[in-house]
Amino acid sequence: MTEPVMVRILGVGMGPQHVTPEVAAALRGVDYVLAADKGGDGDDDGLLRLRREILAAHPGPDGPVEIITVPDPPRNRETGLTATGYEGAVADWHQARAQRYAQVLRERGGTAAFLVWGDPSLYDSTIRVMERVRDLGVALDFEVLPGISAPQLLAARHRIVLHEVGRPVHITTGRRLQEAVAAGLDNIVAMLNPPPERLDLTGLDDWTLWWGANLGAAGERLVAGRLGEVRDAVVQARAAAKAEAGWVMDLFLVRKN
Amino acid sequence: MTEPVMVRILGVGMGPQHVTPEVAAALRGVDYVLAADKGGDGDDDGLLRLRREILAAHPGPDGPVEIITVPDPPRNRETGLTATGYEGAVADWHQARAQRYAQVLRERGGTAAFLVWGDPSLYDSTIRVMERVRDLGVALDFEVLPGISAPQLLAARHRIVLHEVGRPVHITTGRRLQEAVAAGLDNIVAMLNPPPERLDLTGLDDWTLWWGANLGAAGERLVAGRLGEVRDAVVQARAAAKAEAGWVMDLFLVRKN
Ligand SMILES: C[S@@+](CC[C@H](N)C(=O)[O-])C[C@H]1O[C@@H](n2cnc3c(N)ncnc32)[C@H](O)[C@@H]1O
Ligand SMILES: C[S@@+](CC[C@H](N)C(=O)[O-])C[C@H]1O[C@@H](n2cnc3c(N)ncnc32)[C@H](O)[C@@H]1O
Repeated sequence: MTEPVMVRILGVGMGPQHVTPEVAAALRGVDYVLAADKGGDGDDDGLLRLRREILAAHPGPDGPVEIITVPDPPRNRETGLTATGYEGAVADWHQARAQRYAQVLRERGGTAAFLVWGDPSLYDSTIRVMERVRDLGVALDFEVLPGISAPQLLAARHRIVLHEVGRPVHITTGRRLQEAVAAGLDNIVAMLNPPPERLDLTGLDDWTLWWGANLGAAGERLVAGRLGEVRDAVVQARAAAKAEAGWVMDLFLVRKN
Repeated sequence: MTEPVMVRILGVGMGPQHVTPEVAAALRGVDYVLAADKGGDGDDDGLLRLRREILAAHPGPDGPVEIITVPDPPRNRETGLTATGYEGAVADWHQARAQRYAQVLRERGGTAAFLVWGDPSLYDSTIRVMERVRDLGVALDFEVLPGISAPQLLAARHRIVLHEVGRPVHITTGRRLQEAVAAGLDNIVAMLNPPPERLDLTGLDDWTLWWGANLGAAGERLVAGRLGEVRDAVVQARAAAKAEAGWVMDLFLVRKN
């Protein structure tokens, strides 16, 4: 009987400044880190570079922990146009990812880690993929450590609370924003947003917007104000973030007054 | 002209294991920490003790940063039975707190910090109270650094994502849980919960519950399962957490299947 592989799913927040002591300690006992190779320019992939930076800052006894990159299966973004198609496409892609990770985890064994951008509990597939790896018959145990998420950093940068006193906050995707508005929700965080020209903001002109791109990273930009008045500022700030960093990720909070 | 007071609002997560490098660095330049004295047994107040622990772990050049405790104004919990009464009571109490902090910040000046439990963007009054201090005429600048929040630690401990693939998560209070259910929401985090016997869980027996108390602290307990089947387990686990730690804070995620 071989020992089960131990997998540590570690939230690293928005970079080295957010790596908690418990994540740093967890990294010290790790044999290798697994990371998806998205087939970009290798080291030029921003997130892969950030992972290397974090590992360099938290070396094990023999230097920085090794990163094993696993080629990411192609993701059919075309089928992502309807919500159901999207979820089906994501499931297929999780399965393909799981098969690739299963192979490496079986061969290497020991203790592996994933460095998850932000917090593993928010729009991240690592936990689900590990459940699938286990379903594929790999003897596996995993633990999860939290990290600072993008909505938290958005709130901190704008120096706001995510909701009014005692009231709720709804976190959803850009794709589902109008669904939330239709349900009567009036305080909504949207993540995983399409570019502004494909984002449906109908009816929200009088709401207040707090928007941020590339938070905690190169190209960070913030915009806040009455949505109808700051639309152009957002388009420009997003373009500037991308020009500065070579990539752009954004999110926002909208609140009815 | 005197320099404006600088206030750092620092999220410390669920204790020392979550203090990020940016929070640790921010603490090094602080003249004093402000904390509410809730009029309990002083050092026996669990959160105050935790703050002292964090400061001891991150001393300045002359040892741990001084904590100045400010007596907390009495909070009229009786008026908290309706949502509007609750918000009114909270506003009065924020104002009373602001007056007390304003006095200390005026006298001491320099750079002050608040160590906020969890993340300052979620059900925490520090940002709003600082805005009121500014409205009282204190020349004040403030910055906010994020910390790990209770919902994130709940998800990490249960090794779950807070939502299904691409779907939303709604964060609200126990008091407003049924309002969210009535609005058709099916994936809800509830915080600031009354004791189980005063929490209305009508209609949720078939939903899945992920519950946790005293996460990251003494008395930590977890319960998960079909809500109708684990109600008693939650009541018992909550009592056990309280018996072990002397205090209890809990939250949960409920999801319709
Ligand atoms: C796949 S999700 C991952 C979320 C992450 N697990 C978290 O805890 O925030 C990626 C989305 O998060 C948001 N995001 C992540 N990092 C960001 C950053 N540095 N600045 C702005 N938004 C960010 C964007 O909405 C992006 O589309
Ligand atoms: C005033 S709110 C503060 C929330 C905090 N700012 C955060 O980021 O989680 C307090 C509520 O948070 C939740 N909470 C805070 N700490 C907790 C812990 N260690 N375990 C379980 N729930 C906790 C409980 O629902 C509690 O009623």
